[in-house]
Amino acid sequence: MRGLSVALVAPLSDADATIQSMDDASPAKWHLAHTTWFLETFVLRDFVSDYALFDADWPFLFNSYYEAEGARHARPMRGLLSRPSLAQILDYRAAVDEAVLAALPTLPEAARALVTLGMHHEEQHQELLLTDILHHFSVNPLESAIWSAPAKVPVAMPGPIGWIEGVSGEVEIGASGASTSSTSPDFAFDCEGPRHRALLHPHALADRTVTNGEWAAFIADGGYADPRHWLSDGWSWVQAQGITAPLYWRREEGGWSRFGLDGRRAIDPAAPVTHVSLYEADAYASWAGARLPTEFEWEAAAAAHDPLAGNQLDAAGPVEPRPSLGGPAFFGDVWEWTGSAYRPYPGFRAVEGAVGEYNGKFMSGQFVLRGGSCATPRGHVRAAYRNFFYPHQRWQFTGVRLAKDI
Amino acid sequence: MRGLSVALVAPLSDADATIQSMDDASPAKWHLAHTTWFLETFVLRDFVSDYALFDADWPFLFNSYYEAEGARHARPMRGLLSRPSLAQILDYRAAVDEAVLAALPTLPEAARALVTLGMHHEEQHQELLLTDILHHFSVNPLESAIWSAPAKVPVAMPGPIGWIEGVSGEVEIGASGASTSSTSPDFAFDCEGPRHRALLHPHALADRTVTNGEWAAFIADGGYADPRHWLSDGWSWVQAQGITAPLYWRREEGGWSRFGLDGRRAIDPAAPVTHVSLYEADAYASWAGARLPTEFEWEAAAAAHDPLAGNQLDAAGPVEPRPSLGGPAFFGDVWEWTGSAYRPYPGFRAVEGAVGEYNGKFMSGQFVLRGGSCATPRGHVRAAYRNFFYPHQRWQFTGVRLAKDI
Amino acid sequence: MRGLSVALVAPLSDADATIQSMDDASPAKWHLAHTTWFLETFVLRDFVSDYALFDADWPFLFNSYYEAEGARHARPMRGLLSRPSLAQILDYRAAVDEAVLAALPTLPEAARALVTLGMHHEEQHQELLLTDILHHFSVNPLESAIWSAPAKVPVAMPGPIGWIEGVSGEVEIGASGASTSSTSPDFAFDCEGPRHRALLHPHALADRTVTNGEWAAFIADGGYADPRHWLSDGWSWVQAQGITAPLYWRREEGGWSRFGLDGRRAIDPAAPVTHVSLYEADAYASWAGARLPTEFEWEAAAAAHDPLAGNQLDAAGPVEPRPSLGGPAFFGDVWEWTGSAYRPYPGFRAVEGAVGEYNGKFMSGQFVLRGGSCATPRGHVRAAYRNFFYPHQRWQFTGVRLAKDI
Amino acid sequence: MRGLSVALVAPLSDADATIQSMDDASPAKWHLAHTTWFLETFVLRDFVSDYALFDADWPFLFNSYYEAEGARHARPMRGLLSRPSLAQILDYRAAVDEAVLAALPTLPEAARALVTLGMHHEEQHQELLLTDILHHFSVNPLESAIWSAPAKVPVAMPGPIGWIEGVSGEVEIGASGASTSSTSPDFAFDCEGPRHRALLHPHALADRTVTNGEWAAFIADGGYADPRHWLSDGWSWVQAQGITAPLYWRREEGGWSRFGLDGRRAIDPAAPVTHVSLYEADAYASWAGARLPTEFEWEAAAAAHDPLAGNQLDAAGPVEPRPSLGGPAFFGDVWEWTGSAYRPYPGFRAVEGAVGEYNGKFMSGQFVLRGGSCATPRGHVRAAYRNFFYPHQRWQFTGVRLAKDI
Repeated sequence: MRGLSVALVAPLSDADATIQSMDDASPAKWHLAHTTWFLETFVLRDFVSDYALFDADWPFLFNSYYEAEGARHARPMRGLLSRPSLAQILDYRAAVDEAVLAALPTLPEAARALVTLGMHHEEQHQELLLTDILHHFSVNPLESAIWSAPAKVPVAMPGPIGWIEGVSGEVEIGASGASTSSTSPDFAFDCEGPRHRALLHPHALADRTVTNGEWAAFIADGGYADPRHWLSDGWSWVQAQGITAPLYWRREEGGWSRFGLDGRRAIDPAAPVTHVSLYEADAYASWAGARLPTEFEWEAAAAAHDPLAGNQLDAAGPVEPRPSLGGPAFFGDVWEWTGSAYRPYPGFRAVEGAVGEYNGKFMSGQFVLRGGSCATPRGHVRAAYRNFFYPHQRWQFTGVRLAKDI
Repeated sequence: MRGLSVALVAPLSDADATIQSMDDASPAKWHLAHTTWFLETFVLRDFVSDYALFDADWPFLFNSYYEAEGARHARPMRGLLSRPSLAQILDYRAAVDEAVLAALPTLPEAARALVTLGMHHEEQHQELLLTDILHHFSVNPLESAIWSAPAKVPVAMPGPIGWIEGVSGEVEIGASGASTSSTSPDFAFDCEGPRHRALLHPHALADRTVTNGEWAAFIADGGYADPRHWLSDGWSWVQAQGITAPLYWRREEGGWSRFGLDGRRAIDPAAPVTHVSLYEADAYASWAGARLPTEFEWEAAAAAHDPLAGNQLDAAGPVEPRPSLGGPAFFGDVWEWTGSAYRPYPGFRAVEGAVGEYNGKFMSGQFVLRGGSCATPRGHVRAAYRNFFYPHQRWQFTGVRLAKDI
Repeated sequence: MRGLSVALVAPLSDADATIQSMDDASPAKWHLAHTTWFLETFVLRDFVSDYALFDADWPFLFNSYYEAEGARHARPMRGLLSRPSLAQILDYRAAVDEAVLAALPTLPEAARALVTLGMHHEEQHQELLLTDILHHFSVNPLESAIWSAPAKVPVAMPGPIGWIEGVSGEVEIGASGASTSSTSPDFAFDCEGPRHRALLHPHALADRTVTNGEWAAFIADGGYADPRHWLSDGWSWVQAQGITAPLYWRREEGGWSRFGLDGRRAIDPAAPVTHVSLYEADAYASWAGARLPTEFEWEAAAAAHDPLAGNQLDAAGPVEPRPSLGGPAFFGDVWEWTGSAYRPYPGFRAVEGAVGEYNGKFMSGQFVLRGGSCATPRGHVRAAYRNFFYPHQRWQFTGVRLAKDI
Repeated sequence: MRGLSVALVAPLSDADATIQSMDDASPAKWHLAHTTWFLETFVLRDFVSDYALFDADWPFLFNSYYEAEGARHARPMRGLLSRPSLAQILDYRAAVDEAVLAALPTLPEAARALVTLGMHHEEQHQELLLTDILHHFSVNPLESAIWSAPAKVPVAMPGPIGWIEGVSGEVEIGASGASTSSTSPDFAFDCEGPRHRALLHPHALADRTVTNGEWAAFIADGGYADPRHWLSDGWSWVQAQGITAPLYWRREEGGWSRFGLDGRRAIDPAAPVTHVSLYEADAYASWAGARLPTEFEWEAAAAAHDPLAGNQLDAAGPVEPRPSLGGPAFFGDVWEWTGSAYRPYPGFRAVEGAVGEYNGKFMSGQFVLRGGSCATPRGHVRAAYRNFFYPHQRWQFTGVRLAKDI
């Protein structure tokens, strides 16, 4: 599973893997090292008695945000580290992997649970690694393609959105045995539970996400210039940043293009719009006379679908949201912004120790996204899965599904 | 009712009423003018056919955030306006009041509803006016007292917090006929409705808010220096701003003092702590092994209490939270931070027209506060009332009630 | 002489006198208090044995930049002080003036020299007071006139610039007995000396300063949009700040208007351009195929002229540069930017004690201006006088005289 | 000569050569490409009729500040370019070198002069390349040594500074035939001329620059904490940036260490202090009861010395200022801050065309440095040579020679 991370950086040079193109992103090299540090620290250092650190200077560099682990390199300076090199970090990965595998048979349950957590952590960083690479190459005026893509097969434009009635009344929400200490196939992050009952009001959900073509119509109708559609914070953001289209879109003579892992190409009007912020998602919904679903409405509907279906990440290569083939797909393509703030569920309590910093402390100011994207490793996401970002962030593969009261 | 606003500025000179001490605050003069502009614009201009504006240049200066009303003076520049003077603005108030009273008998229902809204709007600004004056005088090194206070009568320290079981199961939440178009005694802002059912899980609420004495113990225990208690955004805020105590507190030789409308005095350990941010409230709760209540938990409990009771604003003078006299008072003294993000209720829809900008567009990034404070005009608040601020803001009279799962 | 300061604030309300419209400016009230603090501190406190401070809290508020005098109020916060009031500060002035006059007969020579310095210091602040008031009223959208002005008498447009040959070879530069400790009629600030010889190369000076009409031609020719004319720092400034005309200019339907102490009016094409930065002055000179004079070239030429002549400040009222009546006037109307950095003369040494901070420590990053302006009290300026500002500053009455090599 | 640039990057990986550690610095790769762009643009493109650009997208990336050459990549984003790679840029260099050599025999005089200018331009970037590499590795917590250094041979501490009388009276200053269009051995940059007479006043110069040991005494005496020594802008800088020692110094248990191209080592008290700003240099001089020399005083003295002597750059390797061996060395080791603002000489006129942007437009806000450093290619510097930086900059090898009036 950790091999996918290495495969993802195969097209990158040492220099490519060193760049940090904005504070929100991290160098590819850093992702490879940080996920390794996670295992080295919480498994090897803490549970293998005679383990010697691969390099004692590196934990300072590769701790992300664990206050309990002490001082660390400032996040915005991650791109100033030409050393250690990509090759050295690949060696680090190999050495730690080997040590973990050697220790595994004799590790206590608590440590094995941390290995499991480390694997899910790795998957999260595989997605971030892809989105950070995409951002990095987007700011280089040469706009190189990272992977070449096969020629696009034209598909029929999807028809108008259809509405499907949502589940209402009392429902069960959240992961049942959810705990980072579980090694069962039912792994879930702590923030996905406890499982609890919630009361849903009558509503309908769109049967697919919003397309690039629909988004272009929103732009053409002056959507980005009319404050009536926008949250106040969103309108400030649009004006301060001069936002007029989704991230990576550019107006060309003949229409809109977008930058992707396969370079710059014309937008596909049939494909789901992506790289929009919560502010944009909310403004679009307002313009369309609808609203965003709550995370509970989304989960209640998605629970009936197969999380392994849909366009998700299986192997390195260019990934991109694809046009809907019909049927209300809830998983893959784009993360769907919900209207729910990322806050703890009733009875939530962070786990003890350093890994208790994993989720709980981020529960202010962010919104929940659901469903996974084309860059989410298949098997990582599930109906109860809660992703979260700040409302202005949009370098992830984020999109929009509409909802309405009925 | 509008007379209270004028009474509040009685101790202020023209210059006092002109200062804007931070972007979040507004000059006293501006509050007086803005609330008048609200009536002049939405009632007189829109419904009185031959009404001539008091001064055609002033709407640009006194529109707050109504995009539909066009361009307006930048908020951070409100303190650069020595003209119009306080006296001119008091004339403006008198003229508009007279015109509204003259028109009232013949105003259509829609306009009368806007007058009602204007009165509730005025009450909101009466509270802001007081908190902005307080902030203004706090940044002047002379630290003048605005009102002299009577000598404090010592009271017994409250005992430890008691826990009262909260309402659980399905409850009704929100204002029933809630609408800004109502002139009934059951007025509520649009964001307080629609009334709807919600499901509460078993929990307990503290029988009083946290005191200054308890907060001093939190500080003494290193509460502001230990990242484990803090939300990630809160910890960044504490470090970037160098926060070590509630706003207006200062460490003196013999303990802590605070600045209030009656000048600088020693803190009263028995009185509710105030001027804390959501970040501080959450960190305190974490340190105390508890959590903040949700807004629904709070409302379900408060619904059984009299919103007219408690320490609220009746007349100009120094206002300050007072020690609890026993009994679970839910109204007055301090606004209570809840753990709920300020988001729309199921079925919420902003009203049409410019006053539709009143609440809905602020529903991102802010947290709900409940219960009113010592600076809230008595009669303004109710169990369903939703106040909201950003999690770092603390110049309002904000405090903390603990909750826990049971 | 101190009476002029009080006359200048006669049209201002307490609130008017309280505003600080930018960090570079100070409230009118502050100027009145600071110049009084200067006398109270360096004369009364230091030389009158039983003198009691007027108010012990005020030195903290009214010290400008004297590090030796200890901690002081932050400059950008001067506009947050509604108290002390204008009336209190006028009382302060009266009390200090009375105390100085009473002490004067018995003051030692060193103290009398400080009184003299205090008078020249007062004159400097009289000019700043006017330019700060002008800036303050310019940022209020009401654009009030502070003084009403008589109707303008049309004058003939001046003809093209004439060139007068400058003094070359070895010349004497600087004030001879220049010292702040002098009470002689030949007072000069320390930075004006020592008098020394300098070598000038052949050059010519324009016989008048650049007019508004000529500046409008520079604008019309794209002067603000062509980087070839600009210093690199100037071009960055123009682009970052969006500068397209002198400060206070606005493009109207029929041409340019400017804001002045008499309100907004059409520019007078015959009058000297003013409120331009060194960057603009230098760009204009470059565009015109000329350069700015050095401060020595200017002084050598100006030494033959009467510093009491020209349009300078005699009494409160609207001041403004006036069209040239012919003859190479070197004094009054506008300060003339020179191409000389403000650096010490050979042999310069700052005086001992706190007043040694008066000039020397500002000798980096600033350029010298010469000649005084319409806002400079008559009698304050002289040929050797060195004024200095940063190259982007332009809220003083600053203008341009061209020079060229011959 | 261009080979030295390539030799300097020999120890660097592609990633090392990609980093931009601050806005003032540029990636090593960028220096290699920019100097090549200079030749390609101003020689090959402009003078070789059938020349095809190596890559038409690259001029946008490698133009530094030539406005006449159109839009260009923003300076602070130079470190976001992992592509083109170091290898591609070395190919670019080889191709352009070959084309220039092939064209050289038939190039007109004007083009040959530009080749000469390009060589001197290259030398300037060789020095910047070294200082930028040094800065880059200093911000990486691993603090790698770029070159290993031989063991230090202890030398005797120099005795106290001796004073040598400077040249006074009328002197000739500047490069005689100074012009960028010259291919003679007497090449000089345009800003070094015209040669002209200047009048110097009696003064003395120190016979060596200030040492690390002397600087440590300045620190120990509280030099960085006493505002009396500092220019006002310098004091603001010290306080805002928290400056307490030269760049790259760190307080260790046993004294001070510094970071250099050979890694972190103890400071050598006998060696010249380096990496100090003009503000620090001026404060030190003030503390020492002296002043900085003017650039003319320096040039008049240095004219009698051999510019090829002293510690300068001959080959790749660790470079560092070395202890004085006696005798008033004016060239090499450290650039010496002068007290002279960088302004044009009498009669200066920038050359026509794009290369006219080379020097003249930078003549505001900067100070002149003289003498070259250990990182200046031998042969590059001369007595008339004017280097210039902003007063806060200190990542060059900058040091201090004292002067005083006599």
